[in-house]
Amino acid sequence: MMKHANSDINLKNIIISDKFWNKYIKLVKEVIIPYQWDILNDRIENIETSHCISNFKIAAGEAEGEFHGAVFQDTDVAKWLEAVGFVLNFERDENLEKIADETIDLIGRAQQKDGYLNTYFTIKEPDLRWTNLMEGHELYTAGHMIEAAVAYYEATGKRKFLDIVCRFADLICNTFGNDENKIHGYPGHQEIELALVKLYRVTGKKEYLNTAKYFIDIRGQGENYFLKEEKSEKYKRIFPEFANYDTKYSQSHIPVRQQKTAEGHAVRAVYMYSAMADLADEFNDTELLEVCDTLWNNIVNKRMYITGSIGSSGLLERFTTDYDLPNDCNYSETCASIGLSMFGKRMANIKKDASYMDTVERALYNTLLSGIAMDGKSFFYVNPLEVWPENCMERTSKEHVKPVRQTWFGVACCPPNITRTLASLGQYIYFKEENQIYTNLFISNTTKTQINNIHFTLNLITNFPWENKIKFEITGEDETNAIFAFRIPNYAKNFQVKLNNKNVEYKIENSYAKLSGIFKNDVIEIEFDAPATFIYANPEVRADSGKVALVKGPIVYCLEEVDNGKNLSSIFIDTTQKIKCNFDSDLFNGSEVLELSAHKIKQTENNILYSDVKPEKLKTTVKAVPYCYWGNRKTGEMSVWIKEI
Amino acid sequence: MMKHANSDINLKNIIISDKFWNKYIKLVKEVIIPYQWDILNDRIENIETSHCISNFKIAAGEAEGEFHGAVFQDTDVAKWLEAVGFVLNFERDENLEKIADETIDLIGRAQQKDGYLNTYFTIKEPDLRWTNLMEGHELYTAGHMIEAAVAYYEATGKRKFLDIVCRFADLICNTFGNDENKIHGYPGHQEIELALVKLYRVTGKKEYLNTAKYFIDIRGQGENYFLKEEKSEKYKRIFPEFANYDTKYSQSHIPVRQQKTAEGHAVRAVYMYSAMADLADEFNDTELLEVCDTLWNNIVNKRMYITGSIGSSGLLERFTTDYDLPNDCNYSETCASIGLSMFGKRMANIKKDASYMDTVERALYNTLLSGIAMDGKSFFYVNPLEVWPENCMERTSKEHVKPVRQTWFGVACCPPNITRTLASLGQYIYFKEENQIYTNLFISNTTKTQINNIHFTLNLITNFPWENKIKFEITGEDETNAIFAFRIPNYAKNFQVKLNNKNVEYKIENSYAKLSGIFKNDVIEIEFDAPATFIYANPEVRADSGKVALVKGPIVYCLEEVDNGKNLSSIFIDTTQKIKCNFDSDLFNGSEVLELSAHKIKQTENNILYSDVKPEKLKTTVKAVPYCYWGNRKTGEMSVWIKEI
Repeated sequence: MMKHANSDINLKNIIISDKFWNKYIKLVKEVIIPYQWDILNDRIENIETSHCISNFKIAAGEAEGEFHGAVFQDTDVAKWLEAVGFVLNFERDENLEKIADETIDLIGRAQQKDGYLNTYFTIKEPDLRWTNLMEGHELYTAGHMIEAAVAYYEATGKRKFLDIVCRFADLICNTFGNDENKIHGYPGHQEIELALVKLYRVTGKKEYLNTAKYFIDIRGQGENYFLKEEKSEKYKRIFPEFANYDTKYSQSHIPVRQQKTAEGHAVRAVYMYSAMADLADEFNDTELLEVCDTLWNNIVNKRMYITGSIGSSGLLERFTTDYDLPNDCNYSETCASIGLSMFGKRMANIKKDASYMDTVERALYNTLLSGIAMDGKSFFYVNPLEVWPENCMERTSKEHVKPVRQTWFGVACCPPNITRTLASLGQYIYFKEENQIYTNLFISNTTKTQINNIHFTLNLITNFPWENKIKFEITGEDETNAIFAFRIPNYAKNFQVKLNNKNVEYKIENSYAKLSGIFKNDVIEIEFDAPATFIYANPEVRADSGKVALVKGPIVYCLEEVDNGKNLSSIFIDTTQKIKCNFDSDLFNGSEVLELSAHKIKQTENNILYSDVKPEKLKTTVKAVPYCYWGNRKTGEMSVWIKEI
Repeated sequence: MMKHANSDINLKNIIISDKFWNKYIKLVKEVIIPYQWDILNDRIENIETSHCISNFKIAAGEAEGEFHGAVFQDTDVAKWLEAVGFVLNFERDENLEKIADETIDLIGRAQQKDGYLNTYFTIKEPDLRWTNLMEGHELYTAGHMIEAAVAYYEATGKRKFLDIVCRFADLICNTFGNDENKIHGYPGHQEIELALVKLYRVTGKKEYLNTAKYFIDIRGQGENYFLKEEKSEKYKRIFPEFANYDTKYSQSHIPVRQQKTAEGHAVRAVYMYSAMADLADEFNDTELLEVCDTLWNNIVNKRMYITGSIGSSGLLERFTTDYDLPNDCNYSETCASIGLSMFGKRMANIKKDASYMDTVERALYNTLLSGIAMDGKSFFYVNPLEVWPENCMERTSKEHVKPVRQTWFGVACCPPNITRTLASLGQYIYFKEENQIYTNLFISNTTKTQINNIHFTLNLITNFPWENKIKFEITGEDETNAIFAFRIPNYAKNFQVKLNNKNVEYKIENSYAKLSGIFKNDVIEIEFDAPATFIYANPEVRADSGKVALVKGPIVYCLEEVDNGKNLSSIFIDTTQKIKCNFDSDLFNGSEVLELSAHKIKQTENNILYSDVKPEKLKTTVKAVPYCYWGNRKTGEMSVWIKEI
């Protein structure tokens, strides 16, 4: 069978039981999926109507009316179905499946005879199929449909949705490619590439893989496709702001293999890099893998926030330049951190190198969770590292920064993307290769798997990130000749491994601690220190110069106004002190908080804007809370980076 | 005659001979006016064509073709003629007057029979006159035409241009007003108001003053005019980005007299406030004057940069909120500082209070001059206080910030606005009232004036701002019973006045040192200390917290990369040191520079973005240069605010 269908453990076999994560994961089924279903059906008042289901009914000829919503409106349905698929891995649910199956039936009826599936073009622009790849999002929408169908098939075994998207994928493969009679284009928003790889891995149909490779290889070759397309007779502008198109925006400025820096729209970029990693792996393409590494290193070493977020510019939600990491006007889209996690997980998997997972963990524990309120009802697109609510004003340079999570969005990409990531979190915990099982994240779960056809259960028990002890209970009927590889996080000190309560030697390879042996009903424990630490940015990062961040393990901390009063910029910290770390069981369903002594500038009574009198500093104490939980209490200021005195 | 035609000394009688200013003023006639004339006639290659003169020829029926340029393209011609008018005050110039007179003749021929004058609407939209006050800039363009005609008339005594604009002003007065048969609208961009006051002061025609008052009083009353206008049948959108119009943008959100904070587009705001001050004065309207003071105080105490610039948001070039003063992504348009100077000069004049001039001086000595290169050939619209050239990228949140002055602009408002301000700088130096003559700025000049019909010459000699000694030589044939009032700047210490070399007592009123006596061939000298000082922003200004600015007298200093190397954000200063101040006669045609000891973070060799290792600081020396001169050498980083260690 396919090489990689196997390297991930089937999500059905991973039951997450983690204290830190389950409070979010349970929201998926209890809150988000039902709520989003109501949205798709326009049953929620006081939010922009979605029209999603209605669009499919019109496209199926079962309702009258016009298309409503964005050109990629169908992806809301796709992402909902994908999340449903993932959730059904936890536990089958007759009622939910009935709704999903009916929706899939509707999608099937909205599909055109030749396999084409897109309600915007079907209803509104039937003559303009594939004429606006720059803005039309047809291939992007197709990709999300495919990903949803794969997830639903893997969870339920039902083929109907998979067959629908295969027909569509076949049409795409017959439409795009190097052959003379095919369109030599590629998507304006990457996504189809990684979706086709997934579809190949499920179906074994090599054409899907080859078309994914075609899309990557053709990108940025010769005269830019989108600029040519714009001049064609049938071209019809969809987004006025796409005039004077910058080809870097969609990473089509030069051929992919020549790209050395992460450019343009951050989500487009990391979705593409993920597909590139997949293809490098599938084709043993070391050149492409090196390109992936170059781009990864550029991001991680020069263009990423400490919270694992990317995209420094609010305008065009894009990468800018090395070390340009402003904290209060960045974009740092939640979806971009999800894409970065997808990319990093693939690289770790392919290269069997745990260091990629340090970044993935940072992104998931901080920006993914910052993106969602603890009640699952509101979301951030933009994840600033510093917020002063009064100046996040509409119609200013900071209008994209919101101090309060939004209930839902017109362009609802982040909420369903968070949903599907939470619902498929298991994919980030493990991967396997031959007789090795790699543990990447410390999330409590019970997993059924096998090595060399010896089946066993792996019970991971931890209170991470609040404690750095992780116990693995292996139970099975037979002896397993296996290598257990545990990620050694970059922040871990005194990393120790015990087997059945005795310290054992381990081998270190690519930041994995490897233990080989004959396992059967054994207990492995790993333990390390991860003290709260002052972290400095590279001095090239102008925005963080003279400042420190508070980090403990994967958790980045921040100051909030509700704990520390107004004007967080006036707080200064002495970094020679020991950071106090307390567990507050009442806060955020239980969380560690940090306490530090500090100096705060005394507010002057006078009204003078500029003065030669040095403001006085007063002694005080500050409390820092995990960044992922910010904005879950009173609206107020927030800051990750704090001035050093 | 009119009350205020008298309070300013006629610009013809003020000959500026100042070392600091003349290097700029001489550029007006030698470089800028000829260059701009070539631009208006589309004779300069490699810049966007202006079409200005061509538009007038088409409107006059003397050429074929279409209108080209912005809707307010005519103002380029108006501002050029205004600058020519001011320059002719220095010295008449036959050749220049010939070109100007021919241009005025052309304008006259382009004027419609009923007095209407605007090439955009005449050529392109003859049926849409006054139907789009929100975007059409008709009244704004009219205002600049009027200001130009007044300046040209005052310099040359020639009435033709004045008569042209009077016919247009008559049409405007007959078109707009409270009468039932008139349009009850007002301009989308204020400017006509202050122009009509000027026209009234020259012509004595009360109708102009009343119409100016109408425009101010009607603004923001009842249902917003622009939002009503948008819904009318004849309305035709000019700027797509004006959709979802925010009425604050044009200060029409509430009646003017209810406005308490400076809102919206900064240039629109301060042009309006200037007119309000004029009207408060003309009508002895104390309520309106109080509104002016409230708005002035809001700007100066809460929304202004230390360089006298305003407009914190790049988007919409607007005011945002109190204390929101980011240094690297602000707009701080040169024109807005010019408007602020116009406003402050009026307030000082009306209230006989020198403290307004501290802000005017700050704006003129820093942002006005930062707006123009020392060779007069390139200009800044946007005046940041911190620049990192590599990240001032197109298509990002900082795309409006330019690290290098631009040769000319499509929308050429700032260059001609700087030109006319330099050419009329005399207006800021003095004003008179009855037997008092007020000196507001310390700029060397020779002025002929009179008090109680006793004529005398006032010779102001100084090397300010590099020295704080100002000598006034009074020469005349008769004794002058006068009060000389000298501004005591807010930064002055030990302010002393000498009469004929002997210390004398003086009275202080509203920051003026007043000396009365019988003057005839006397010498008054004022002297004060203005040491280089560390200045702190109000702690509420998040962007400047923990930082200091270096200021000496009116001059704000900055660090530049060319003197201090890359990464100015890594420099820290100990403010207990004494600032060294040297005069460098080779730099910027002679300038004081400041020297300080400092600490600079050592650049690490490694490639790590985040680390728990505290970066090392090394001792160094830094050099600060006047902000107004930044960007006149090599392109590089610049920063006004420096971290305090």
